[in-house]
Amino acid sequence: MQEPSRAREAFRGGLRAPTSGCCPGWTQANLISLPHEFAYDFLLFAQRNPKSCPVLDVTEPGETSASIFAGDLRTDLPAYTVYRDGELVEERTEVTELWRADLVSFLVGCSFTFEAALLEAGVPVRHVETGGNVPMFRTNRDCRPAGRLAGPMVVSMRPIPAEQVATAVRVTSRYPAVHGAPVHIGDPGALGIADLGTPDFGEPVRVEPGEVPVFWACGVTPQAAVMRSRPPFAIGHAPGHMAITDARDSDYLVP
Amino acid sequence: MQEPSRAREAFRGGLRAPTSGCCPGWTQANLISLPHEFAYDFLLFAQRNPKSCPVLDVTEPGETSASIFAGDLRTDLPAYTVYRDGELVEERTEVTELWRADLVSFLVGCSFTFEAALLEAGVPVRHVETGGNVPMFRTNRDCRPAGRLAGPMVVSMRPIPAEQVATAVRVTSRYPAVHGAPVHIGDPGALGIADLGTPDFGEPVRVEPGEVPVFWACGVTPQAAVMRSRPPFAIGHAPGHMAITDARDSDYLVP
Repeated sequence: MQEPSRAREAFRGGLRAPTSGCCPGWTQANLISLPHEFAYDFLLFAQRNPKSCPVLDVTEPGETSASIFAGDLRTDLPAYTVYRDGELVEERTEVTELWRADLVSFLVGCSFTFEAALLEAGVPVRHVETGGNVPMFRTNRDCRPAGRLAGPMVVSMRPIPAEQVATAVRVTSRYPAVHGAPVHIGDPGALGIADLGTPDFGEPVRVEPGEVPVFWACGVTPQAAVMRSRPPFAIGHAPGHMAITDARDSDYLVP
Repeated sequence: MQEPSRAREAFRGGLRAPTSGCCPGWTQANLISLPHEFAYDFLLFAQRNPKSCPVLDVTEPGETSASIFAGDLRTDLPAYTVYRDGELVEERTEVTELWRADLVSFLVGCSFTFEAALLEAGVPVRHVETGGNVPMFRTNRDCRPAGRLAGPMVVSMRPIPAEQVATAVRVTSRYPAVHGAPVHIGDPGALGIADLGTPDFGEPVRVEPGEVPVFWACGVTPQAAVMRSRPPFAIGHAPGHMAITDARDSDYLVP
C-alpha cells in the first residue's frame, strides 16, 4: 500500500499489522485521545518533553479526523489500546462505540517517519528487513511532569552497524518533529533496560556483532504516562500500529 | 551587558531599552501571561502557529520564574504591556502589583536570538547597527485560531542585501525554535503592509538600494491575538523589550 487513504481503508476493513515500512514518504503518527479536562496537562507535558512527544496535530473535542488525517480516528488505525484508570483494559481494531464527545486527540510524531531516510542513506533498519514491529522499552528516565501527568520516557531501539551510527544520528537529527536524534547510543543498562530481548512493547530484534543499539525517544511515552498517572479514560494506538497521515515526511524535514 | 543575570538586574533597576544586541549568545524570549483558564487555548494556538509562537517554556499558575529564566518575570524585563479586555491599558517597567495567582506565563522564542548568527555570517542587521528596535507589522495573514484565541500573524522586518538573502534564509532556518526561516521575502504589499515607514510596533529602519525587505514571524503575534480576542486580562513584554533567559542560542540550533 502506497497511499495513506488506501492504507486507512484496509485498516478500517480490519487489517491488523504494524505500520513500519507502510506508505513510504508519508508521515506516521502516534495517537493519544484524552478527556478534554486532561488536554491542557497533556499539551504541557508534550511541550516539556518535546523529544518524546512532538505534537503534530490536535483535534477539537469529539472530532474524529484531524487537519493532517483525513480518515476516521476511530477506525482507520490498525489497532488501538483502551485504558481505564490507567489500566490497559483491551486492544481493539476500532473504537467507535467507545468514542466520547469530550475526547481530544493528539497526533504525535513517530520515528517510523525517518526510517525511509535511514534506508536511503544506506543505514539498515532491522525490523523493516524482518517485517516485524520495532522493539520499545520503558526507561529509568522520567519525563518532566505536567499537571497530573508524569511517567517514564519510552524509547525505540534500532541496532546500527558501528560505522553507520554517525550517519544515523545525522539523518535523524534532521527530523526533530518525529523524535529527531537518538537520546542514547550503546549500553542499554544505562537506561535501566535489563534485556534487549524482552521489550515492553513491540517485538525483539537481533543485535548482530559489530552493531550498536541506538535508542530514540518514542511516542508510546504518552501511554506510559497514562499508565502511571491514571486518568479515568484514554485511547491510544497499539504500539507500532500507527495513524498513517496525509502529511509528507518532507514536511518535517529541517534544512 | 554580557550576562543575563546582570541584564535582568539592570532592567529590575528601571533601565528601559530594547534588548536587540543585548547579551549575545543568550536566548531572548517574548512574554505572554494569561489567566489559567486561557492557558490551554494559548498552548493550542501556539501548537497550531509554530512559526509565530514557538513556546520555549511555560510556568505553573502564579509562578514568577521559569526553568529557563531564573529572574523575576514581574520586574526583570525592561518594559511590559498590560491588556484588559484586549485593550492596551498601560506600559510599565514592572508589573508586581498587577500580578495574579492564576497567571500562566509563556516564554516564546524571539528572532533576536538568531541575529548574532546573522552577524557572524556577515549579514548586516540594520536595527542592531543603529541601536534601535526592530520594526514589526501586523499582516493580512490570519493565524489558525484555537478556542477563543484568533488574530493576525505579526512579522519583524530586516532589510537584507539581495546577494545575502539566501544566506539569511540558510542561517535562520537552523533556529526553528526562534521563528526559523523567513515567512516572506520582498513585496510588503503581499502581507498587507502599506508602508514600511510606519511599523505597528518598534521603530522604522532604512531600506537601502539593493536591499530586500525580509520578514520573519514575530512573537508579538500572541499580543495581537489578545487584542483581537479580548481575554479579560493579559500581560506581555513591550515589543522589542524581551526577557533575557538563561538558555543559550546554541540550545536552539538544529544541526
